[in-house]
Amino acid sequence: MKIVIIGSGNLATQLSLALSDAGQQIVQVFSKTEEHARELAGKLGCGYTSNADEIDGNADVYIISVKDDAISDIAQKVCEKASNAVVVHTAGSIAMDVLKGKAQHYGVFYPMQTFSKNRKVSFREIPCFLEASDDDTLNTIRKIADEISENVVLADSAQRKKIHLAAVLACNFTNHCYRLAEKVLQEEQIDFKLFLPLIDETAKKVSVLSPKQAQTGPMMRWDTGVMNMQIDLLSDERTKQIYRLMAESIHEDATSTDDTCHQPKA
Amino acid sequence: MKIVIIGSGNLATQLSLALSDAGQQIVQVFSKTEEHARELAGKLGCGYTSNADEIDGNADVYIISVKDDAISDIAQKVCEKASNAVVVHTAGSIAMDVLKGKAQHYGVFYPMQTFSKNRKVSFREIPCFLEASDDDTLNTIRKIADEISENVVLADSAQRKKIHLAAVLACNFTNHCYRLAEKVLQEEQIDFKLFLPLIDETAKKVSVLSPKQAQTGPMMRWDTGVMNMQIDLLSDERTKQIYRLMAESIHEDATSTDDTCHQPKA
Repeated sequence: MKIVIIGSGNLATQLSLALSDAGQQIVQVFSKTEEHARELAGKLGCGYTSNADEIDGNADVYIISVKDDAISDIAQKVCEKASNAVVVHTAGSIAMDVLKGKAQHYGVFYPMQTFSKNRKVSFREIPCFLEASDDDTLNTIRKIADEISENVVLADSAQRKKIHLAAVLACNFTNHCYRLAEKVLQEEQIDFKLFLPLIDETAKKVSVLSPKQAQTGPMMRWDTGVMNMQIDLLSDERTKQIYRLMAESIHEDATSTDDTCHQPKA
Repeated sequence: MKIVIIGSGNLATQLSLALSDAGQQIVQVFSKTEEHARELAGKLGCGYTSNADEIDGNADVYIISVKDDAISDIAQKVCEKASNAVVVHTAGSIAMDVLKGKAQHYGVFYPMQTFSKNRKVSFREIPCFLEASDDDTLNTIRKIADEISENVVLADSAQRKKIHLAAVLACNFTNHCYRLAEKVLQEEQIDFKLFLPLIDETAKKVSVLSPKQAQTGPMMRWDTGVMNMQIDLLSDERTKQIYRLMAESIHEDATSTDDTCHQPKA
């Protein structure tokens, strides 16, 4: 299977490296920034272009991993060159239908992880959420996904939006909690590295306990003395407000009877 | 060194088990709930009492690990029985001086971790923050701390308050981000376990990148289309407000020039 990678960002980089490691034939990288295209193509040992008119029209699969609002235009270009190929995008929050009326065979290939360009991740455990316009297309992209991930899951566009939202909460917001902690520590010249065992244990705990069961701390005891003191210690109004809302949210969750952790679909 | 454990909660349980494993002689557990005292004493193979008047007066060190607002009263009781012993509490946000005028030799022994009763943790990497009324007391508690932790650090009461605040942000708030994600997933019957690789990688990343460098996602691109859609997907007003504030906070941090991640002490 010949694959063209459209894009050269964090996700495009890590996904194409994983596909290449799994023996897939990446034939070309396109990026509108030539330097980025060349850099990634160098890692993959394949061709590259920054001119959309020069995208290789003979591949079987085109993986579009660019900014959300650029997907539609570049998909149009790809489909002019390769009208019978499979065209997928990798965006969590963009509906599959952005490709409808352009490609004949299209879908979504969403590997859910936090990717940075220079940090290689093991794809084996990363869930890949797939959606396709037809069964043949699904089979094609499922074969590719199965070679790099042990967690290939079907999800339609509505589900994938919720999955992406949950990923923002569990990853981007979590990482920002680390950052807010780091800022507090800097005020006392305390090394953030001392907090790594706490961060690690907090993450590990939810593999054996539900987040609700795993929760600890002053909000669980609703210790208003400690909470008010901590709000006073924070130096800016927005972080104080985040503290208040998170505290209320933890408390409400802890005192609710929703122990089953299953809510009916609205 | 003979030690009495005052308290039977998550921290008291895990700390006393670690001390016992390290060869320290725990002679008694006190808890006002007899069942809890008996349960922990059973694990430690020592005596127990739920009557403060029966606290063993012949120990060298008393470790008070009870609710913050109960420390003062039980410290008074302990010091009536053992006026020359070392008395420490384990609370992040309570000043050492809560013990002043009661014990002659006193201090704080604060192991920073998220403890649950039935989840044993390795103490080796857990930072223990110490403070003491005098050098002899510091030497005594440092010897104990060194036997269970490789990260023994001195911190005064003002520093420890900031450390505890940072721990609430990096642990309790982080865990609640997992919980908010889980709630979104439940609406689509998506298994939270699929998110464990994302949670794990998010935690691991900050051991090699600063949280600011590690950040990814729609707030970094200030993708208002995705952000507004995600706010719409959230089902309650408080979580929407948390989302807005966290998004602004991430964006402000990403666009600030504070790259050194070091701020002068106010």
